[in-house]
Amino acid sequence: MEDLKFNVLRLLSEKYDFISGEKLASELGVSRTAVWKAVKSLRSRGYSIEAVPRRGYRLVKTPDVIFPQEIKRGLRTRVFGRKIVYFEEVASTNDVAKELASQGAPEGTLVIAEMQTRGRGRMSREWFSPRGGLWFSIILRPDMTPGEVPLLALMLGVGVAKALLREGLRCHLKWPNDVLVDGRKVCGILTELDAEMDVVNYVIGGIGINVNNEVKDFPMEFRHLATTVKAELGRKVSRVVLLKHVLEELERTYDGLNEKGGSVVLDEWRRLSSTLGKRVRVVTHGRTIEGLALDVADNGALLIELENGRIEKIISGDCLHVGKI
Amino acid sequence: MEDLKFNVLRLLSEKYDFISGEKLASELGVSRTAVWKAVKSLRSRGYSIEAVPRRGYRLVKTPDVIFPQEIKRGLRTRVFGRKIVYFEEVASTNDVAKELASQGAPEGTLVIAEMQTRGRGRMSREWFSPRGGLWFSIILRPDMTPGEVPLLALMLGVGVAKALLREGLRCHLKWPNDVLVDGRKVCGILTELDAEMDVVNYVIGGIGINVNNEVKDFPMEFRHLATTVKAELGRKVSRVVLLKHVLEELERTYDGLNEKGGSVVLDEWRRLSSTLGKRVRVVTHGRTIEGLALDVADNGALLIELENGRIEKIISGDCLHVGKI
Repeated sequence: MEDLKFNVLRLLSEKYDFISGEKLASELGVSRTAVWKAVKSLRSRGYSIEAVPRRGYRLVKTPDVIFPQEIKRGLRTRVFGRKIVYFEEVASTNDVAKELASQGAPEGTLVIAEMQTRGRGRMSREWFSPRGGLWFSIILRPDMTPGEVPLLALMLGVGVAKALLREGLRCHLKWPNDVLVDGRKVCGILTELDAEMDVVNYVIGGIGINVNNEVKDFPMEFRHLATTVKAELGRKVSRVVLLKHVLEELERTYDGLNEKGGSVVLDEWRRLSSTLGKRVRVVTHGRTIEGLALDVADNGALLIELENGRIEKIISGDCLHVGKI
Repeated sequence: MEDLKFNVLRLLSEKYDFISGEKLASELGVSRTAVWKAVKSLRSRGYSIEAVPRRGYRLVKTPDVIFPQEIKRGLRTRVFGRKIVYFEEVASTNDVAKELASQGAPEGTLVIAEMQTRGRGRMSREWFSPRGGLWFSIILRPDMTPGEVPLLALMLGVGVAKALLREGLRCHLKWPNDVLVDGRKVCGILTELDAEMDVVNYVIGGIGINVNNEVKDFPMEFRHLATTVKAELGRKVSRVVLLKHVLEELERTYDGLNEKGGSVVLDEWRRLSSTLGKRVRVVTHGRTIEGLALDVADNGALLIELENGRIEKIISGDCLHVGKI
C-alpha cells in the first residue's frame, strides 16, 4: 500500500491533468479500489486530489511534504539526493546515514525525516527537530585526508547559506558553519567522518534547518538563540523546494571544491561570513581564546589575533561573536 | 597460591633462562617450597618448566594462549587492556571495536581474536589472520582533531616496535607504521577514526603481528613480503607475553604523547625508522612521488625531497623503500 500510494502520486504529478482510475489501475497492475484507497491515503497527508466521474483523478495541490518523489521531481543534481531514504520519524538521520555509508551507500545518498527523536548537534549536544523543519544527512565520499574535512564543513555551510539567500533570507555564516539571521541560528550542521589515518572513508553532512516550525516550540533556553525561515520571511515556504535548492547548491559547491580546490570554497565562505573582522571568543580544548577574527586558513581553521598581537589558529571549538572592534 | 604461581611465571618468562629457586623465593618473599609448588601448578596447566639442580628453574615452553586472564595476569598498564573482549574467531576485531566504541566502551578496551575471517588492512586490503598470530584492536579516545590522528598512527608503530625489540627482534619502522625485519613485514597497523569535523570521537588501533604463524601459510603473493617473529628469532615466543609488552609500550608512548606532546613520539619514531635517509616511492591520490625521505613533519607527514629540490609533504599513501641514495 505504501508503494502504491507513492506510485499513484508519481503518475498524477507527472501529468498534473486528469488520469482515469482505470488507466492508473492498469498501469500499476492493481484494482480500481486499490487506486481509490491510495488517493484517500494521499488526501489524508494533505494532497488535494480532484475526482470527477468519467474523467478520473487530478492532482491540484501538493502539501508541504518531503516524500522522495516530491524531492526528485525536477531536482537538478547529478549525485546529491539521487538516492533518498525517507522516514516519518527517526532517532537521528546521521546515525542512519552512517550505517548506510558503512554498508557502501553511494555518495549523495540523502537520509531525511519529518522529525527526529534524538537529533544530535555538534559536540554531542541535543538538536531539537520537530515537524516543519528540514532534518537530513548527506553521504559524501571525498578523496581527502581527515585533516582536510574542516574545509568540507565550511563547504556545507556555504551551500546551505546560498540556498537560503535564493529564498530571500538575509543570512550569514558564523565560523565554522552555523547559518545565522541577525545573530540567531536558522541552520546547524554536524559534520561527522569515518576514516583511516590518512584516507577518509566517508563523511556525513548532517543538516538541520528551522523552516516552518515555530520558535515558540523551542526549548526555553534556545528560544532567544534560534529563528526559523518562516519567522524571518513572515510566510511559510515550501520545504521541498528549499531542500532541492540546498541539494543543488551543495552539489555545485562540492564540485567546485573537487575541481578547483579549497580556495574557491574559502572565498565563498569569506564572502558569506559575518565572523571575520569581529571580536570573537572561542572555547577550545578547555581554553578560552579571545581576539580579532582575521581570516580562515587553507584547512578551514580560524585565525585569531590576540591582544598581544600573536595569531592563534583554531580548528576546534565554539565561536562566539562578542562584537565589532 | 594463585598469585604466587602467576608471579613465578612472570619472573621465569621475563628471563627465559635459569633462575635459582633461592632467588625466586627471595624476590617473591616466599619459601623455596612455595616456589616449587607454584612450578608444579604451572606445569599442570601446560607450562613446561625445566628444573636443574644448582641452576634452578627455566621456562621452556608456555601454552600459547591469549585468554583474558592470561593477558591480565601481571599486566603493568593503567588503562590499556584493562577491559578485554576475546574471540576464538571473529570477522574483524576493528569492526567489533568500532561497534563497542560507538556504544561508549572506555579507552584502552582491547578486542582480540585467535583468528580473523575477514581481517582488514590499510586501504580496504585483506589482512591474513590465521591462528598463531596476534590480531587485536585497541580503543583510544584522544583529545585531538582528526588532522592530528596520523601522529597517533606513528605512535602505534613506535609502541609495537619497542615491544618487539624487547623480545630481541631487530625490527624497524617503515613510514607510516609498518614494522619490518630486513624489509619484510612482521606487523601491520590499521588506524581508523570516528570524528566530528574538529573533534575525534574515538580511534581504533588495529594491530596485526605475525608471531608463531607460518610464513609458508601466507597467500603466495605475500610470502616474500612477510615474516614472523618465530621465523626471525628461530623459536616460538609467548604471544601473551609479547601482547603484554605491546600494551605496556603502547600505553607508555601514548601517555608521553598526551603529557609531553607529539615531539616525543616523533623523536622515537625517527630513532626506530628505517625510512629516513632512504630513497622512497610513494603512491598518493593516484600520483607517484619519488625522492629522498628527509624527515617527518609535526603532524606525522613524510617530507620527501624531489629530484628538483622541491620538498613534498605526504600524509597519505603507501611508501616503498627503493634503496639508499
